[in-house]
Amino acid sequence: MNLDQIRRKLAAFARARNWDQFHTPKNLSMALAAEATELLEIFQWLTDEQSKVIVDNENEMALVRQEIAGVFIYLTRLADKLDVDIEKAVLDKIEENEKKYPIELAKGNATKYNRRD
Amino acid sequence: MNLDQIRRKLAAFARARNWDQFHTPKNLSMALAAEATELLEIFQWLTDEQSKVIVDNENEMALVRQEIAGVFIYLTRLADKLDVDIEKAVLDKIEENEKKYPIELAKGNATKYNRRD
Amino acid sequence: MNLDQIRRKLAAFARARNWDQFHTPKNLSMALAAEATELLEIFQWLTDEQSKVIVDNENEMALVRQEIAGVFIYLTRLADKLDVDIEKAVLDKIEENEKKYPIELAKGNATKYNRRD
Amino acid sequence: MNLDQIRRKLAAFARARNWDQFHTPKNLSMALAAEATELLEIFQWLTDEQSKVIVDNENEMALVRQEIAGVFIYLTRLADKLDVDIEKAVLDKIEENEKKYPIELAKGNATKYNRRD
Repeated sequence: MNLDQIRRKLAAFARARNWDQFHTPKNLSMALAAEATELLEIFQWLTDEQSKVIVDNENEMALVRQEIAGVFIYLTRLADKLDVDIEKAVLDKIEENEKKYPIELAKGNATKYNRRD
Repeated sequence: MNLDQIRRKLAAFARARNWDQFHTPKNLSMALAAEATELLEIFQWLTDEQSKVIVDNENEMALVRQEIAGVFIYLTRLADKLDVDIEKAVLDKIEENEKKYPIELAKGNATKYNRRD
Repeated sequence: MNLDQIRRKLAAFARARNWDQFHTPKNLSMALAAEATELLEIFQWLTDEQSKVIVDNENEMALVRQEIAGVFIYLTRLADKLDVDIEKAVLDKIEENEKKYPIELAKGNATKYNRRD
Repeated sequence: MNLDQIRRKLAAFARARNWDQFHTPKNLSMALAAEATELLEIFQWLTDEQSKVIVDNENEMALVRQEIAGVFIYLTRLADKLDVDIEKAVLDKIEENEKKYPIELAKGNATKYNRRD
């Protein structure tokens, strides 16, 4: 199933429930932020090391998978409502990032391009 | 380009910059929430109606596309680090949502399934 | 009770539970964002009008009060850990906002100062 | 200056700019989440240790102070619009947390009360 098939499946789901009235870009941006932050919440008291070994905890991972799916779903809905081609947007951004973060400047350095000295 | 190809492209990008040291699940969950909230910020003072007609504003839409890509990129990185198959997680969640939100109960009603009377 | 008394009460609470090890600035910033987003979640499917009349809904307001307190608590903890005098920071920011948003330019206009034409 | 004086100062600021039309509870919850996440963004690529020594970096701390103030300001506005007495809400929540996290169970353990075994 590709991105466009998922997009259409989600649109049909909302349409069948008459939910398009709620799915304004504004509301979808809120729902997206809420899902992203539920993912964040899973990691908030963990050390970096603990955040890596979470893959071995089946209960936590079930939650992680649900929240990742939640983010993806609202992102797809938002992009659909705003006629954004996600794949194209992602490829454009990767290209832009290649310019902002050339390997020789960015190697081992996560400083944001516009805060680099 | 499918989800897996994007995943591999992003992994190569990080590896070339020696960024895997920063890309712990914890840090990626923070970056994801930050990108999602930048998207939210675009809509915060707009009415629902204004949030819909943003599609006609090319400057705003350029920003929207970048932020949507940003969310997608960090979500893909996080899923990669945690060995989550996004497509499978999304299809599972849609199936689960079909049970939580049957058409006859959810039609025209956005109440969360566990807060329905 | 003033801000400083609340700060000390919260510090004692954490100390008694040996929680300072978890309360790094990084983790507190995550917990703060998580609480703020739980507040957001309450409003995500409401219209502006519905978001105003929530004051008449005692159940929802009990939740709102808890989340507002949650944000305040983590903000106070974070400021404490970083030696930030919240009151001073707030008064400085109000002063700065008075310069960025002079009444004649900002009247009836929520455009961010750096995006104004 | 106490919480109530800050609340009134911020209300006057908004009124003078005719901003109450934008300051619906819904919009304020979005602005609050956005400010909280800007704070988070400062810490996203830092280790816990680096997040502590940020106090010695005057540039970063200037930013931290502004974002802390931003969170406080929108939280105060939101509480004002919803007639929430922040001080009371905070003291109630501390009392509730004392019950949810008794010292003997919570000592050295950040597990959320409802996920404790």
